[in-house]
Amino acid sequence: MTRILIEEQAYARLASQLRAIDAALQFIVMRADGLLYFNGEPITTAAAKPDVAWLNVGVVRANLGQHYVQTVLATGTVKWLQTYNAGLDQPFYQQILNQGIRISASSAQAIAIAEYVIANVLACYQDVFARRRYQQAHQWQRMVFKELWRTRWLLVGFGNIGQALAQRLRAFECEVIAVRRSGQAHDLANQVITPEQMAEHLPQVDGVVIACPLTNETAGMVDGTFFQQLKPGATLVNIARGKIVDEPALIDALKQGIVAQAILDVFDPEPLPATSPLWDLENVLITPHSSNAGENTPRRGDLLFLENLRRFLAQEPLLNEA
Amino acid sequence: MTRILIEEQAYARLASQLRAIDAALQFIVMRADGLLYFNGEPITTAAAKPDVAWLNVGVVRANLGQHYVQTVLATGTVKWLQTYNAGLDQPFYQQILNQGIRISASSAQAIAIAEYVIANVLACYQDVFARRRYQQAHQWQRMVFKELWRTRWLLVGFGNIGQALAQRLRAFECEVIAVRRSGQAHDLANQVITPEQMAEHLPQVDGVVIACPLTNETAGMVDGTFFQQLKPGATLVNIARGKIVDEPALIDALKQGIVAQAILDVFDPEPLPATSPLWDLENVLITPHSSNAGENTPRRGDLLFLENLRRFLAQEPLLNEA
Repeated sequence: MTRILIEEQAYARLASQLRAIDAALQFIVMRADGLLYFNGEPITTAAAKPDVAWLNVGVVRANLGQHYVQTVLATGTVKWLQTYNAGLDQPFYQQILNQGIRISASSAQAIAIAEYVIANVLACYQDVFARRRYQQAHQWQRMVFKELWRTRWLLVGFGNIGQALAQRLRAFECEVIAVRRSGQAHDLANQVITPEQMAEHLPQVDGVVIACPLTNETAGMVDGTFFQQLKPGATLVNIARGKIVDEPALIDALKQGIVAQAILDVFDPEPLPATSPLWDLENVLITPHSSNAGENTPRRGDLLFLENLRRFLAQEPLLNEA
Repeated sequence: MTRILIEEQAYARLASQLRAIDAALQFIVMRADGLLYFNGEPITTAAAKPDVAWLNVGVVRANLGQHYVQTVLATGTVKWLQTYNAGLDQPFYQQILNQGIRISASSAQAIAIAEYVIANVLACYQDVFARRRYQQAHQWQRMVFKELWRTRWLLVGFGNIGQALAQRLRAFECEVIAVRRSGQAHDLANQVITPEQMAEHLPQVDGVVIACPLTNETAGMVDGTFFQQLKPGATLVNIARGKIVDEPALIDALKQGIVAQAILDVFDPEPLPATSPLWDLENVLITPHSSNAGENTPRRGDLLFLENLRRFLAQEPLLNEA
C-alpha cells in the first residue's frame, strides 16, 4: 500500500494515470492552503505516513515549496522524493538525503534548455536584432552571418541538459567536447574530458556552455584565469547557476572582447539587481532564470514522475537518481 | 587540355588547388573589367575556347554576371557550367541548357539557409525580441516559450536545402514530412509525399517551409486555398522564390492569425518595395534574400567547384546536375 504526498492540482490532473499504474495507490493531497487530506478528510502530518513525495513545479508555483519539504522531513516515512529541480544544490536536499530518502532529479527541462541555448546562440550569430531594426526602417540591407556549422563547443557538465544540447549541436555538424567528472566516453560527444583537462581545451573552442551542478569544485570556476585561457571571440552560455561564474571577471572579459557574447540565464543573486552593469552590455543576452520555461516542461515533468513511480514500485533503477 | 573560364579573384584564390587536381589545366581569366586573359595576355572571346565555366558568387558581386553568361554562350565551346545558384529559374539557364551545356547547381548555401530557418523559427517561438525589450528595461520577467520539440514540419521541396534543414529538425525531434515530385522515401524524412498529397497534410502541420524550385507548377502555389487548408497558428517560411507565394493572400492569412508567423527571405519583386505592408506586420520577419549569406557559403562554393571539376575530368557524375 504505497502512499504518495501530492499537490492537489497534480492529483486532479494525473489521478487516473496514477491509478492505472497501481490501483491500490493511496494519496495524501496537499491543498493550496498547505493542509493535508486523505480521501477528502483532513489528516495530520503525523498520521499521513507517505512513502513517496513529489516536489513538482505546481508546489513551488503555489508558494508551498518550503512547507512541502518540511512536511516530507516531518513525516519520517518518505523513501523516495521526485523533484522538479535538475540541480540539487539547495541545502534542503542534503537534509533529505541525510534522512536516507532517495532523490531523483528532473530531466524535464533539458529539452527546453537545449532549445534556449541554440535559439540564443543563433540569434547572436545571425544578429536577429539588427535584422529587426532594418526591417523596422524598411531597409533592404544584406548582412553576412556567422554559422554554427563546424564550430567547436565545450559543454561543462554532461547530464540530461548537456546531452540534449549535444544532440542538437551534432546535427549542426559542431564538434562537441564534453566535460564529465567520470571522463567516460559518450556517443553524443566527439570527445569527453575531465575537469582537470578543461584548461588545455579553452584556447580552441568557439563556445562554452556551463551546464554542471553547483558544487564546491564548480563555485567560481569560470574566473579571470578561465577567461585568460579562453579563445578570444568565444561565446559563453550559463544555464546552470550564477555562482559558477565570477561576474566581475566576466564583465572584464566582455569589455575586452575575449567573450564576444554572453548568454546568461542565471545570476548571483537572483533576480539580477536592476543596477547590475550586465543589463546594458551590448553583447550580453539576459533572461530571468527561464531557460527551462518551455511550454512542454510541465508535461515532461508529469511523465517523468509517472515513469519513475512505475520504476519505484517495480524496484527498478530510478531515472536521474542523485 | 581542359580550359576553365574563371573570374580573376577566384583564380588567385584557388590556382594552386586547381593545379593540384590537374597540372595541365588552362585558365581563361576574366578580370574586373570583363576582359579575358590567357597566361597574362589579352585573348578574344572567339579564341578563348573554354571547356568549363564557373559562374561563382564573385562574378555576380563584380556585376559581371550577365557579361559572363553572354561570354559563355558566345564561345560555343563550354561543355559544363557550375553556378552559384541553387535554383535555375532565371531564363538564361534555359538558353545555356539549349546549347547542350551541362549545368550543376550549388548546394553551398544549403547549410546557411538551414541555420537561418532554425534561428528564425526559434527566435519567433521564444520571442527573443520581447526578451530583449525586457532586458533593455532591466526587467526580470519570465516568459513561457513555444518549443520546436515534436512539432510537425512540411518541407516543400527536398533538395540540398530541405535535407540540410531536415537533419537539424530531426535533432529537435520534429516530424518531417517532405514533398518530393518523385515521392521517393528518404532517411531524413519521416514521410515523403507528392505535391498532389500536400493539401491533405496542411491541416496537421505546425510549420511549412517553401524550399522548392520556381516552376510553372509552383508559381502562386501558396495561395488563398492553401491558407484555408493550413492549420491555424502555423508558421510559414519562404526561402525559395517570392513568386511561389501569393502575397495578398499571405497578408490576409497573417491578419486572420491562420499564419501565426511568417519568415520571409524572398519576395516578388525584390528588393521588397519600401511601401509594402509586409514590413510593418508584427508577426513577420523580413530579410533581404540573404538566408544564404552564411560566412562559409563562399568557401563551400569553392569546395563544390573543385569537387565537381575533379568529377568532370574523371567523367564521374556531377553533384547537383540539373
